Amino acid sequence: MTTSSADLGSIVDAAAAAAPIWRRSSAAQRATWLRAAADALDANADALVAVADEETRLGAARLTGEVARTSGQLRLFASVVEEGSYLELTIDDADATATPPRPELRRMLTPLGPVAVFSASNFPFAFSVAGGDTASALAAGNPVIVKAHSGHPRLSALTANLVAAALEAAGAPAGSLSLVEGREAGNALVQHPLVRAAGFTGSVSGGRALFDLASGRPDPIPFYGELGSINPVVITEAAVAAQKDALATGLVSSFTLGVGQFCTKPGVVFIPAGTGFEDAVAAALPAASGGPLLTERITEAFPAGLAHLEDDPSVSVLASGVEVQGVRPVALLTDARSVVKRPDVLLEECFGPVTLLVRYDDRDELHAAIAAVPGSLTATLHAEPVDDVSATLELLQDRAGRVLFAGWPTGVAVTWSQQHGGPWPATTSLHTSVGASAIRRFLRPLTFQDAPEPLLPEVLRDHALTRLPHRRNGRLVVPA
Amino acid sequence: MTTSSADLGSIVDAAAAAAPIWRRSSAAQRATWLRAAADALDANADALVAVADEETRLGAARLTGEVARTSGQLRLFASVVEEGSYLELTIDDADATATPPRPELRRMLTPLGPVAVFSASNFPFAFSVAGGDTASALAAGNPVIVKAHSGHPRLSALTANLVAAALEAAGAPAGSLSLVEGREAGNALVQHPLVRAAGFTGSVSGGRALFDLASGRPDPIPFYGELGSINPVVITEAAVAAQKDALATGLVSSFTLGVGQFCTKPGVVFIPAGTGFEDAVAAALPAASGGPLLTERITEAFPAGLAHLEDDPSVSVLASGVEVQGVRPVALLTDARSVVKRPDVLLEECFGPVTLLVRYDDRDELHAAIAAVPGSLTATLHAEPVDDVSATLELLQDRAGRVLFAGWPTGVAVTWSQQHGGPWPATTSLHTSVGASAIRRFLRPLTFQDAPEPLLPEVLRDHALTRLPHRRNGRLVVPA
Repeated sequence: MTTSSADLGSIVDAAAAAAPIWRRSSAAQRATWLRAAADALDANADALVAVADEETRLGAARLTGEVARTSGQLRLFASVVEEGSYLELTIDDADATATPPRPELRRMLTPLGPVAVFSASNFPFAFSVAGGDTASALAAGNPVIVKAHSGHPRLSALTANLVAAALEAAGAPAGSLSLVEGREAGNALVQHPLVRAAGFTGSVSGGRALFDLASGRPDPIPFYGELGSINPVVITEAAVAAQKDALATGLVSSFTLGVGQFCTKPGVVFIPAGTGFEDAVAAALPAASGGPLLTERITEAFPAGLAHLEDDPSVSVLASGVEVQGVRPVALLTDARSVVKRPDVLLEECFGPVTLLVRYDDRDELHAAIAAVPGSLTATLHAEPVDDVSATLELLQDRAGRVLFAGWPTGVAVTWSQQHGGPWPATTSLHTSVGASAIRRFLRPLTFQDAPEPLLPEVLRDHALTRLPHRRNGRLVVPA
Repeated sequence: MTTSSADLGSIVDAAAAAAPIWRRSSAAQRATWLRAAADALDANADALVAVADEETRLGAARLTGEVARTSGQLRLFASVVEEGSYLELTIDDADATATPPRPELRRMLTPLGPVAVFSASNFPFAFSVAGGDTASALAAGNPVIVKAHSGHPRLSALTANLVAAALEAAGAPAGSLSLVEGREAGNALVQHPLVRAAGFTGSVSGGRALFDLASGRPDPIPFYGELGSINPVVITEAAVAAQKDALATGLVSSFTLGVGQFCTKPGVVFIPAGTGFEDAVAAALPAASGGPLLTERITEAFPAGLAHLEDDPSVSVLASGVEVQGVRPVALLTDARSVVKRPDVLLEECFGPVTLLVRYDDRDELHAAIAAVPGSLTATLHAEPVDDVSATLELLQDRAGRVLFAGWPTGVAVTWSQQHGGPWPATTSLHTSVGASAIRRFLRPLTFQDAPEPLLPEVLRDHALTRLPHRRNGRLVVPA
């Protein structure tokens, strides 16, 4: 199924017609609409999970959890809208005594208009039709047009129908959420004059192509892409000494979770030479299983990516797990010097259940290898209090949006403080796509100068400031 | 003078070497450095103004005021750094009872690394070497490399030397602020692998070319351009009835201020037909004077742009002012129907002392013409309480970053709530280049998960939170 050019036009027009209604909607209305969408997902979870499992084979347990995560995400954004900080309300009163005299200025953030969302293959709920990009764009006050992922077309249509109906039943305008299908429609979407921003989760090549289209418009629009991430892990000698087996099993669980198809999968692990850590991984991996991959494209790409790594003269296959439906988890082994020499080969993300262990002899080797690591969503450090890791940590935090200690990067809590984004190619922007502050991507500042109160947006009037967080004359005010 | 490729490399390397020192600097240090830069400008104001006047001919009065504005801007950012909200500190405590269990997450904003700043011709201080982009990038914790404007090369060098010396004397590292010259060096700067962002104020064509270079990099970087703006003004019939002459003289002052070379100059003014407002403008304009324009390029472009407008069959010359050094202010007149037909001709920014009055017969004509107005920094409405302006206001706020009432757009207060940015082509981003929140452009989020307290950046430790604004478990906390 592909959306025709004419249909795309009608769909965007409907979103554009809905945009002023979303922009003018009150926090209470918008929160009600978001919660109605959440309730619709929860009420139809069984039907949604059944279709999702047929299309993605991710299993009912994982998918049921993901529906809950997705409805929870919509509810988090409802509370973000109600709390009101996201508006960044800022008032400077007039000052006739200043040189030059200062007018009254009242600033807020305001929605952009129709937002395009490109959904991901690996999170058919949480990063798909009603996922994080959609939730944050709607919360900001923008209608959304989703480009369905070809890996789960029936689920996309079902979700879009359910959520669009729930939004309308709750009072939101027609055109609040719609779906388009097909690559051509996606390309046309980011170039459509009425589309004001785009969110994307997917591959570096696909994301780059769309980024280039968005940036190449006569009027460029922001393109928030979450593309590729190698997610480096560093393990110190002291950490291996303290808990070799726990780290090995933890690593195996993390890189094989969801058949290695998480964007936060640890793809490269720097391990101290001579500690036998690789043996512990080799001992743990045979208990882990492969499984069907999400799409035909990934199923073809995984062995090719694996072969690309294995072909490097420095790389050996350390161990593998149980083959299920033609896919087995694999741990590869190389050394830090080779990574420094061929980062383009050895540090390229390979989507699927594989990780590359990189032995380092000393801190200099470790640091030289980390310096070759491209921007990532996460960086993980396993160390002990005895270690001086300050220099290592500096290198890691320069390359990542989230730095973890004594944990594993798979698993992304949806909270106020989450950061799911990092230097290129992890993301194309200085923002997160998960957590409360993802809403900032779909807003722009708007300041009113010397406006008569009746002409101000509701949230900028004095009576609204008695209940909304704001800054006035430089001072932050949080109403009780 | 042009910076050679080798020199550019050394300059960027020095900035990159300074970057970790800036990133690790405390708020107190950074505020001291910014204030030292401000003090250096003030202490040398006479010498700076003398050179600036020779190069720009903007006059000592205006230039002296601009030095004060520029040092004030640096001091505002010092206070922004001390206040600490800009860090967006956000903590979510661990929750072992959540499903799945939640780790501790601590989020902050962190600097990007070396920032390129392209200075403007029309603000040799406030948007130049030590201007708003530089101040906000330094405040965020980034070294800055300025591309000097060819319109004031000696002033650029003098300012850079003074400020760089003041920064170093205050304890900032070498490489904190440096200067490059020449178009080739500017192009190389936005493409240099170690440069992490760019700020720009200038023309649509120049800005677009640099935006394309920044976006086309193997690793695209954010390019914050403030390009072109027509700054629409709407005057209602009731407003003319209430204060025709005051509006006419106010308009003339605003569009001829600084010889019409402000990015917020009102370039198109929608006036009610049959009220005689154009006659009032024609009566006021002869008292206004032209003057030398800033650069050779602008001196050549102004008559060409004027001729382009005058060649439109709908356009007549309404009035002109006193010619000074070959430049006279001009008011042109057309009608709303022609603007709707030929917006590309009639709504193109013409830098210099010209404005286009557009007569409208009724609200439908007015609204159709506003709908053709491109994104602007400002939109101004002159109305009376009797007017129902809600629909007009909606159209204006969709096209601007700052909406003014009963005032004129020239004059941009440097405060917490200022917004100097708007939809394309006014700016290339969803940010401001003036005011406190301009700092957000040069920061990215960084979250620490389950970090041992000694490994956290100072500002994320519990003891720092007793004095810094932050959000904890969703609740905003403002220490007394």
